[in-house]
Amino acid sequence: MADPRFFTVSGPLTLAELAEISGAKLQTGADRDRVVVDVAPLETAGPDQVSFLDSKRYVEAFMRSKAGACIVNPDFTDRAPDGMALLLSEKPYKTYALVALAFYPKAELEPCLHETAIIERTARLGEGCRVEAGAVIGARAELGARCHIGPGVVIGESVVLGADTMVGAGASLSHCLVGARVMIHPGVRIGQPGFGFAMDAGGHVKVPQLGRVVIHDDVEIGANSTVDRGTGPDTVIGPGCMIDNLVQIGHNVQLGQGCVIVAQAGVAGSTKLEDNVVLAAQAGLIGHLHIGKEARIAAQSGVMRDVPAGATVCGAPAVPIRDFFRQTAALVRLAKRKDE
Amino acid sequence: MADPRFFTVSGPLTLAELAEISGAKLQTGADRDRVVVDVAPLETAGPDQVSFLDSKRYVEAFMRSKAGACIVNPDFTDRAPDGMALLLSEKPYKTYALVALAFYPKAELEPCLHETAIIERTARLGEGCRVEAGAVIGARAELGARCHIGPGVVIGESVVLGADTMVGAGASLSHCLVGARVMIHPGVRIGQPGFGFAMDAGGHVKVPQLGRVVIHDDVEIGANSTVDRGTGPDTVIGPGCMIDNLVQIGHNVQLGQGCVIVAQAGVAGSTKLEDNVVLAAQAGLIGHLHIGKEARIAAQSGVMRDVPAGATVCGAPAVPIRDFFRQTAALVRLAKRKDE
Amino acid sequence: MADPRFFTVSGPLTLAELAEISGAKLQTGADRDRVVVDVAPLETAGPDQVSFLDSKRYVEAFMRSKAGACIVNPDFTDRAPDGMALLLSEKPYKTYALVALAFYPKAELEPCLHETAIIERTARLGEGCRVEAGAVIGARAELGARCHIGPGVVIGESVVLGADTMVGAGASLSHCLVGARVMIHPGVRIGQPGFGFAMDAGGHVKVPQLGRVVIHDDVEIGANSTVDRGTGPDTVIGPGCMIDNLVQIGHNVQLGQGCVIVAQAGVAGSTKLEDNVVLAAQAGLIGHLHIGKEARIAAQSGVMRDVPAGATVCGAPAVPIRDFFRQTAALVRLAKRKDE
Repeated sequence: MADPRFFTVSGPLTLAELAEISGAKLQTGADRDRVVVDVAPLETAGPDQVSFLDSKRYVEAFMRSKAGACIVNPDFTDRAPDGMALLLSEKPYKTYALVALAFYPKAELEPCLHETAIIERTARLGEGCRVEAGAVIGARAELGARCHIGPGVVIGESVVLGADTMVGAGASLSHCLVGARVMIHPGVRIGQPGFGFAMDAGGHVKVPQLGRVVIHDDVEIGANSTVDRGTGPDTVIGPGCMIDNLVQIGHNVQLGQGCVIVAQAGVAGSTKLEDNVVLAAQAGLIGHLHIGKEARIAAQSGVMRDVPAGATVCGAPAVPIRDFFRQTAALVRLAKRKDE
Repeated sequence: MADPRFFTVSGPLTLAELAEISGAKLQTGADRDRVVVDVAPLETAGPDQVSFLDSKRYVEAFMRSKAGACIVNPDFTDRAPDGMALLLSEKPYKTYALVALAFYPKAELEPCLHETAIIERTARLGEGCRVEAGAVIGARAELGARCHIGPGVVIGESVVLGADTMVGAGASLSHCLVGARVMIHPGVRIGQPGFGFAMDAGGHVKVPQLGRVVIHDDVEIGANSTVDRGTGPDTVIGPGCMIDNLVQIGHNVQLGQGCVIVAQAGVAGSTKLEDNVVLAAQAGLIGHLHIGKEARIAAQSGVMRDVPAGATVCGAPAVPIRDFFRQTAALVRLAKRKDE
Repeated sequence: MADPRFFTVSGPLTLAELAEISGAKLQTGADRDRVVVDVAPLETAGPDQVSFLDSKRYVEAFMRSKAGACIVNPDFTDRAPDGMALLLSEKPYKTYALVALAFYPKAELEPCLHETAIIERTARLGEGCRVEAGAVIGARAELGARCHIGPGVVIGESVVLGADTMVGAGASLSHCLVGARVMIHPGVRIGQPGFGFAMDAGGHVKVPQLGRVVIHDDVEIGANSTVDRGTGPDTVIGPGCMIDNLVQIGHNVQLGQGCVIVAQAGVAGSTKLEDNVVLAAQAGLIGHLHIGKEARIAAQSGVMRDVPAGATVCGAPAVPIRDFFRQTAALVRLAKRKDE
C-alpha cells in the first residue's frame, strides 16, 4: 500500500467497476461484486488487492501470488492460482495504468494564488489556477484554466500555457507556447537561446535566436531537462511526446507525435523526428538529421546519418541493430583468436 | 518574422547600413539605399528581407529564394537569382550574426531592484543593475554595472560579477569570481564543492574543497550546466568560452580562451584544455589530461590520454579520427566476411 | 592559502595535533611542537604548511616541495627533501582529508528562519535549523535538528529529513524520506514521478508512481542530479553513497551502501547495485539489472547484463575489462593490417 503520507487511495472498487474503467474483460465466472481496495505488486498483493502480469519474466511470481485479482493477457489464464479473479487484457500494462489511476486519481486542484507569488498585472490566468509560493508570472503571460504553477517557477513574458498544464518547482519558461495537459517537471528549462554562434578567432559571435519553443498537448518533460528556443524557425515538441530527465533538445529540433526520449539523451539542432520515434537513454543525434516514423535508437547510440522509418539502430556511429550485433560478435571472435 | 510577443525588430536599415554594420561588401551595382526590414531564412524571406547562405547544402534554396538581399561568399554570386542584392563576405554566418543583431539588438536594461529581492546590506551593486523578483544576493557580493540577475537567482556570499553580466532564472553561484559580459543561463550551478573524497570501506571521507571558480570575460554557460569549485587551485573558464546545456565541469579544470563545450559533455577533475579546443556533445574527458590548442574531440568520444594541439580524436577510447574511421571500416568488413 | 573571502582557516596546529586528529604517525625525530598554519599543494606549500603525496605521479613535486610537513606513505620517506617533517599514513589522501577538515572545519550553523521563507504551520522543525530566504517547507514536513535549507529550496508535503542534513539552493524534494548528515547540492530534483507509462498508439498512458525515495544517512547528491520516486516499491539510496552532478537515478533503483556514481552516469529503472559499486562518469545501466558488490563500471560503459561482485566491466555493450582491452587491441591491429 502506498505511503498514506504521500498518497491517498480511493475506492474500494468492485471487479465490475474495474473492468468498466479499464476496458478489461472480467473472466467468465468471476464475482462481479467482489471488492478490491488497492493495487499492489504480485509479490506483496493480498486477497483484497489487484495486481498485473505484463511479462513472461514474472510468471512464477504470478503463479505464487496471493492477489485477489490480477490483470493478465488471456494466454496466461491457465497459470493463475486458485481463487484469483482475472481481468483479461491484450495490453495488461495499459490496463493496469487505468486501474491504478482509478485508485489514485489526480488530486482535484485547489485554486489559490499564493500571497508571495509575483503575478504581473497584465498576465491573464484562467479560472481555477493554482500558483504556489514564490512563483513569478511575467507580463502578458496567458495561463489556461486549472494550471498548476509550482513554487519558485518562473513564467516569462508573453508565455502561453494551455488548460490543465502543470509546471514543477523551480522550472523556468520563456519564449514558448505550451499546450494543454502538459506536465513540466521540476527544474526544466525551456526557451533559453540555443547554442548558436559564429566561431571566430577574434571571439565567437553570438547569433540572435529569434524563434520560440512550441509544445503541443499532453507532453511530459522530465526533471532538469532543457529545451532551447529556435533560431528563427521554432523548436517543436509534438503532441503526447514523453521526455525523461536531463534530456537536451537543441534549437529548431522538431519532434513528431508520441516520441519517447529517455534520460540523458540529446538531440542537436535542426534534427527532425517523425511520429513515435524512441530515443533510448544517453543516445545522441547530431544536427540536421531526419529520423523516420517509429524508428528506434538504442541506448548510448551516436547517430550521424538519417534513419529510415521503422528502423532500429545501435552503436556509435549507429548502424542497423543487426549489423551492430554482427560487428560486436565478430570483434569478440577476433579478440579470442588473437589469444590463441 | 520573429513573434512580436517575444521579440522587437529594429530598423528598417538600408543595404549601405547593413554593409557598414557587418563589414560585408555590397556587390557592385546594388542599390545602396534599398531598405530591408528584417532577417529571414532563405525559404521564407521576401523582397524586403535579408537572408544568408552559409553552406553549399543550401545553394538550391538560395537559387530559388525570394529574399531581397542575401549575405553570401563571393564564390556564389553567379548563382544568385535576379534582383537579389548581395552582401559579400568570406564569413557569411558571422556577417549574418552582426546583421541579425542590428535588427534585434540586446534590449537596454531597465534598472530595478525588485521589492521581493533579498539583497544583503553589505552587498555592493554597480549602477544600472536589474535584480528580478525573489533573487537573493549574499553578504559582501560585488556586482558590476548593469548586471541582470534573474528571478530566483542565488548569488552567494562574496561572489564577484563583472559589468554587464547576466544570470538566468533560478541559477545559483557561490565561491566564484565572474568577469564582464558573461551569460549564465537558467539553472546553472557554479561553485558547489567538487566530487572529492577519500574512498574508505569505513565510509568515504569528504575532502574540503578550498578553491574557487574563476570565469573570465565573455563566457556563456548553458542551462542546467554545473561547474564545481577547485580543491585548492581554482577551476578556471577562460575568456570567450562557450559552454552549452547540461555540461559538467569538474574541480580544478582549466579551460583556455575560446573553448567550445557542446551539450552533455563532461570534463573530469584537473584536466586542462588549451585555447580554442572543441569538445563535441556527450564527449567525456577523464581527469588530469592535457588537451592541446585547437584540438577537436568528436561527439561521444571518451578521451583517456593527452591530445596534442590541432589533433582531432574520436571514439571510446578516443583515437585520431583517421584511425577511428579505419577501425570502423575494418570492423564492418570483418563482420561482413563472417556472414559469407 | 584559500581565499579568505570564501574560506576561514582555523589553527595553527602542531604536528602532534595533526597526527592525533588524522591518525597519522609522526616520523621519528620530527618536532612534535612544530606549528603548521594551513594545507597547500606540494608545488606551492611553504615551510609553515602541510601537503600530501598520494600518487607516484607526483614524487618529483614531492622531492622539490618546500612544504614544512607532508603526509606520505611510509614507502616514500627516503625521497623527502631535507627539513620536511613527515606524517606517515597508509592512506595519505584520507589522512589529508582529516587534516584539511581540521584547518577548515564545517562552519557552525547559525540558526535562523528567514522572514521570507514560507513554512507551513504543520511542518515540524528540529532545534537549530537554518532556513534561507525564499525556501518553502510544505505541510507536515519534518526536519531534524540543525538542518540547513538553502535559498529557494522546496521541501514538499510530508517529506522527512534527518538531523544535520543540508539542501542546496533551488533544489526540490517531494515524496521522500531522507536520513541524517545528507548533503543535497543545488538544483537536485528528488521524488518526482518516474518515467513510467504504457506505450500506446492512441497516446501513452501514464502509470501512477506510488512509491517514495528513501535516502539513508551520510549520502551526498551532486548539483542538478535527479532521483525519481518508485512506482510502488521505493527508490533507495544506501548509506554513504556519493553521487556526483547531473546523474540520473530512475524509479525503483536500489543502491547499496557506499556506492559511488560519477557525473552524468545514469541508472535505469529497477536496477539494483550492491554495496560499494563504482559507476564511472557517463556510464549507463539499463533497467532490471543486478550489479554485484564492489563491481566497477568504467566511464561511458553501457551495461546490458548483470555484473558479478568484484568484476570490472567496460565498453558498450560492457564486457570484462580484460576482454575490452583485448578487443580494442585486436581492432587496432586489424585496421593496421588493412592499410598494408
